[in-house]
Amino acid sequence: MEEKLREHIQKRVPLTDDEFAFVLAHFTLKKYKKHQFLIQEGEPVSYSYFVVSGLLKLVYTDELGKQHIVSFAMEDWWETDFQAYFAQTRATMSLDCLEDTVVFCLSLENYHKLCAGLQRFERFFLQLTIAGSIAAQRRILSLLTTQAKERYEQLFNQYPTLIQRVPKTLLASYLGVSRETLSRLSD
Amino acid sequence: MEEKLREHIQKRVPLTDDEFAFVLAHFTLKKYKKHQFLIQEGEPVSYSYFVVSGLLKLVYTDELGKQHIVSFAMEDWWETDFQAYFAQTRATMSLDCLEDTVVFCLSLENYHKLCAGLQRFERFFLQLTIAGSIAAQRRILSLLTTQAKERYEQLFNQYPTLIQRVPKTLLASYLGVSRETLSRLSD
Repeated sequence: MEEKLREHIQKRVPLTDDEFAFVLAHFTLKKYKKHQFLIQEGEPVSYSYFVVSGLLKLVYTDELGKQHIVSFAMEDWWETDFQAYFAQTRATMSLDCLEDTVVFCLSLENYHKLCAGLQRFERFFLQLTIAGSIAAQRRILSLLTTQAKERYEQLFNQYPTLIQRVPKTLLASYLGVSRETLSRLSD
Repeated sequence: MEEKLREHIQKRVPLTDDEFAFVLAHFTLKKYKKHQFLIQEGEPVSYSYFVVSGLLKLVYTDELGKQHIVSFAMEDWWETDFQAYFAQTRATMSLDCLEDTVVFCLSLENYHKLCAGLQRFERFFLQLTIAGSIAAQRRILSLLTTQAKERYEQLFNQYPTLIQRVPKTLLASYLGVSRETLSRLSD
């Protein structure tokens, strides 16, 4: 478990054994079963999560009760309701397990301690956030410019394993298309 | 001009006079006229831009030649083709002026020098990027969940001055709605 986190960070910044021990001391490991919630809408957001194994979905429920998939998160991804996490407000989204999932949890207090105590961790987190921003910009562009078919193909090319692991109804919600449209596309 | 940059950074991290002088030495000031391009699609992306005054649009042109507004940037905002800037690849989008515009330009080399030389600047940039990521996530949610009318109202409430300064056709493109739909909404 620990090695996955270390490899993930070391893809971006080097770490000595002592530095990694310092990093690791700020995380707690938790295991969740399929269908369990890590974040519930309306509740405080205690952690940011690094996914060791499994699959999560971040969901926004609109006023009519319709669910929208904001993102999926599988191995090697970070996920939380970032707005609520950093502002320490209540969650506007929920995060729950599509598969049994193992995560490393980082509280905001420990995040700040880590950044203050180890400049390399702050640098790692900046690089991670820049990559996330760029991915978000690509998704905006995809929602603005492309038709359902292209969006499905883009997702398929980018994350082929994700498509196999996620139920079609949820994929359709993520892509902003109807379940019927998705069935036509993925046949 | 310099004071605007200093105030902008100091909203997030404190800076001594010496530290700000160090920061400022890494930027160059440039002035552009309305309609001039800062970034052209297919060209290298030399800078990230902090807008001192004026208004920019970041535009993606699809295969059919249709233009899509990825974002606007006015006073106090940063803009560039971030993917191309950080990867030092060629621009997939263009950035041009909707008004006469003054910007501080930061090359990637100077960005790295600044982060290496002043930890507070790296912290500032991390906070800025986190805020940008959260805004991007909200925009994704808005594109997935809301109808044209709500999107227009959200934008109006968030950036009332932007709506007055941007031509309706471009607002429609940003919101992903037709020009006709926008006219009905904004009457």
